[in-house]
Amino acid sequence: MARTFDINIDCGESFGNWNMGADEALMPHITTANMACGFHAGDPMTMVKTVRLAKQHGVAVGAHPGLADLLGFGRRTMALSPEEVYADTLYQTGALSSVLKAHDMELHHVKPHGALYSMLSASEALGEAFARAVIEICPEPMIYYPAPVENHAVTRIAADMGIDVVPELYFDLSYDDVGGLILKRANEGADLADTKLRLARFLESGEVLSVNDKPVAMTARSICLHGDGPNAVDLARTICDGLAAADYTLAPLVPTPTIAGKAA
Amino acid sequence: MARTFDINIDCGESFGNWNMGADEALMPHITTANMACGFHAGDPMTMVKTVRLAKQHGVAVGAHPGLADLLGFGRRTMALSPEEVYADTLYQTGALSSVLKAHDMELHHVKPHGALYSMLSASEALGEAFARAVIEICPEPMIYYPAPVENHAVTRIAADMGIDVVPELYFDLSYDDVGGLILKRANEGADLADTKLRLARFLESGEVLSVNDKPVAMTARSICLHGDGPNAVDLARTICDGLAAADYTLAPLVPTPTIAGKAA
Amino acid sequence: MARTFDINIDCGESFGNWNMGADEALMPHITTANMACGFHAGDPMTMVKTVRLAKQHGVAVGAHPGLADLLGFGRRTMALSPEEVYADTLYQTGALSSVLKAHDMELHHVKPHGALYSMLSASEALGEAFARAVIEICPEPMIYYPAPVENHAVTRIAADMGIDVVPELYFDLSYDDVGGLILKRANEGADLADTKLRLARFLESGEVLSVNDKPVAMTARSICLHGDGPNAVDLARTICDGLAAADYTLAPLVPTPTIAGKAA
Amino acid sequence: MARTFDINIDCGESFGNWNMGADEALMPHITTANMACGFHAGDPMTMVKTVRLAKQHGVAVGAHPGLADLLGFGRRTMALSPEEVYADTLYQTGALSSVLKAHDMELHHVKPHGALYSMLSASEALGEAFARAVIEICPEPMIYYPAPVENHAVTRIAADMGIDVVPELYFDLSYDDVGGLILKRANEGADLADTKLRLARFLESGEVLSVNDKPVAMTARSICLHGDGPNAVDLARTICDGLAAADYTLAPLVPTPTIAGKAA
Repeated sequence: MARTFDINIDCGESFGNWNMGADEALMPHITTANMACGFHAGDPMTMVKTVRLAKQHGVAVGAHPGLADLLGFGRRTMALSPEEVYADTLYQTGALSSVLKAHDMELHHVKPHGALYSMLSASEALGEAFARAVIEICPEPMIYYPAPVENHAVTRIAADMGIDVVPELYFDLSYDDVGGLILKRANEGADLADTKLRLARFLESGEVLSVNDKPVAMTARSICLHGDGPNAVDLARTICDGLAAADYTLAPLVPTPTIAGKAA
Repeated sequence: MARTFDINIDCGESFGNWNMGADEALMPHITTANMACGFHAGDPMTMVKTVRLAKQHGVAVGAHPGLADLLGFGRRTMALSPEEVYADTLYQTGALSSVLKAHDMELHHVKPHGALYSMLSASEALGEAFARAVIEICPEPMIYYPAPVENHAVTRIAADMGIDVVPELYFDLSYDDVGGLILKRANEGADLADTKLRLARFLESGEVLSVNDKPVAMTARSICLHGDGPNAVDLARTICDGLAAADYTLAPLVPTPTIAGKAA
Repeated sequence: MARTFDINIDCGESFGNWNMGADEALMPHITTANMACGFHAGDPMTMVKTVRLAKQHGVAVGAHPGLADLLGFGRRTMALSPEEVYADTLYQTGALSSVLKAHDMELHHVKPHGALYSMLSASEALGEAFARAVIEICPEPMIYYPAPVENHAVTRIAADMGIDVVPELYFDLSYDDVGGLILKRANEGADLADTKLRLARFLESGEVLSVNDKPVAMTARSICLHGDGPNAVDLARTICDGLAAADYTLAPLVPTPTIAGKAA
Repeated sequence: MARTFDINIDCGESFGNWNMGADEALMPHITTANMACGFHAGDPMTMVKTVRLAKQHGVAVGAHPGLADLLGFGRRTMALSPEEVYADTLYQTGALSSVLKAHDMELHHVKPHGALYSMLSASEALGEAFARAVIEICPEPMIYYPAPVENHAVTRIAADMGIDVVPELYFDLSYDDVGGLILKRANEGADLADTKLRLARFLESGEVLSVNDKPVAMTARSICLHGDGPNAVDLARTICDGLAAADYTLAPLVPTPTIAGKAA
């Protein structure tokens, strides 16, 4: 049986006259797209255009909701209440869901952006509010979060509520000894040789090598690419080639069936 | 058989810390609500709160999309392209539709706000774009427009596309000799005696008396109230009493079945 | 020699079509106004209108800059960098300063709003950035902060930088045993009898009585009123009457001359 | 005596995380900059950063105010009242003026952006409101408009009010037989050979050759470059070289002294 893997990028992050990312160039290389919904980036025209682009390439579309802070690109932590997180997620994810429906597509998953991602990772109350909105909008509720997902408050709660939690890895980033991501600035670009090695090792052994050369066992069902780096398309090709070399084909994730809130 | 009539108001037009309208006081007196969707007014928290209020009172909820101009309350005409009108309507109406779905309700109709209403009334290209978005989001597409609906570019096109077009009257406003509304400022409040007379005459004869005392035959299936006037609740009671005195009961509109784009 | 006192309110906090506060009714009772500058509330038209109102009543105008969060009314803490606080303060305060100049007035002081106030109170780095912007815009740099001003990071730094720091008291609020304010919701309104007693005691003794009946010595040069409460005008009258009864007349503050960054 | 010419570009049109234009690369080649003020583009951090960049290159800074429509980049005509145009211009120009003052610079001129430019060109009432704001903010009021300036309502009124009106030419664009600009999309880039020819002819004869090969006499005191095209830096170099070849040196404009509202 063919083994498949999922590759996701953040997309639709242009705003009006301002462009960001390389959505057109990347779509042929990915299987799922996390689409900005108008709060931290994106706007109705950009969403319609990017949904059509995704459809044309057979890419499944998830929501990428963020904080209502265009100026800060949703990267500045804000003191939101759980009610605000619930309502903001419902609104953004719901808007995208309807744009998809108008194009005969269904919302595939939800992946929070920037500071919202961090806030949900840290707070059970906010995480519960977010998960509640996801369940109400997603036909088969699924959220993406960096592996190891145990590190995030929201993923523990979401799994208990019956949401399929998808762990993802970044092969263009380094990891610390406990599997934490070591962030860098988008404009630096990815080291493609390192990326290739990290991916090959993971596909072989299920491990990533930390910056201290310590092997860390990781579980992942998707690979996330940074679509805004200067060599994003080359990065995508590197990942695709690495997967192909290990006999994986690309396919969007299908939700794992769950029973009473637990994976079957 | 009991005769029924529909009463609608614009609602959910607060924004964050700023209040507008008297939604709580008016909900018991109406049957359908046109809810702001976050572009000219409203925000996710206000939408969730107002949807819950409507549900509690058995009020059907339609979308009240507007221009992306909070500062101008969507009342300043903007040069939008048909693609922008389509995308903005899809986004706003879709967001509300999802908030409704999360509360086990369905989108009832769409009624454009302010300058968007005027732009669609004047332009066939914009009207077509709007109607297309409505059809894609509304389970049973229905739009409300002031009678006589023949006056509006968008209603002619929408009817041809199979949308149920609901003509509505304002009994707190005066009409000119061809059935056009004579607008006044919201803060003036309604003349309740005039309102009572206009309503009674219409229910009896199907006519409104123009400012020049000319009878104008009108068709209407809903009554719109201005919810932001100083005596809005008294106005609502006056309308309700007038309908009851003429043996009408209140009920939200049910879409008229259409065949090939025409009312059966 | 006549003793004078300064009374300030936050004002200009309407936004477009949404009204807030009772600026017209309160202006005759105050001496200085802290005017919203368009980020958390206010807009260019509201600013022009409110500046003209202040001028008509001989009220000195200070800037009331806030976070760029209209939806949250600037009350949601945001993770801003010092550079962002500097630029946002310069922009908002500068815009108001120019509106004042166009009306032959000068910027009187700066008083930060909501979450920005709290962030500056807690962070020396942000406080320094704010103070730098104030010095560059204010002809005679002056900031208002609740007494005791020693409690705030920004006031300690601002005083060292040569800014005149004005301690203010709220007589419609209770105090704890160390002079900290006990906040309540704006819509509760002020207890006028309590307000009268607190003011009289302070004018007599320089003390406020804490909620635990402990006298706390306080220094203050201005009194702040909440202009958005339901009985704000009565509160203003109560304060004015109390000051008059103790032989104070009302006058805007004149900056205290400073030498090398210290009050002379 | 050395002859001088002024070259201006629109700049500071990035917004938060989104970049636009090539401000750093273009600053060495120009003498005046029209800086976005936060309504159609730009934000406080971008303004501070771009003002510092201009200062470093000895570039004079004017305001480039626009409509409050970030999503439409200020390019969608909006039905604004004269009071709104006055207040919006005062606010934006005033904010920039204060940022400049904080860097020991003075506001050099004002040049409206996009749809605001067109609205002021077409309406005397809006033009008068704009001119009034410019006079109140600019130490030596000066506005830039495309030649022939007689074509614009605002420039006729501004000149009568004593504002120095600077006619500018675009050598990267074609002209029609009455001196009107023939616009094209920014992403097409400039034809450098055509640009060189047009400039040389104008410097020699004071004429531009229309698309129909008709010579049109033009008066101009500044040259505007499109800073957002793909070959903007090469375009700037072409203009600079052309001016140098005709023995012009670059210098920001000095306002023409005016007497009773007329140029001396």
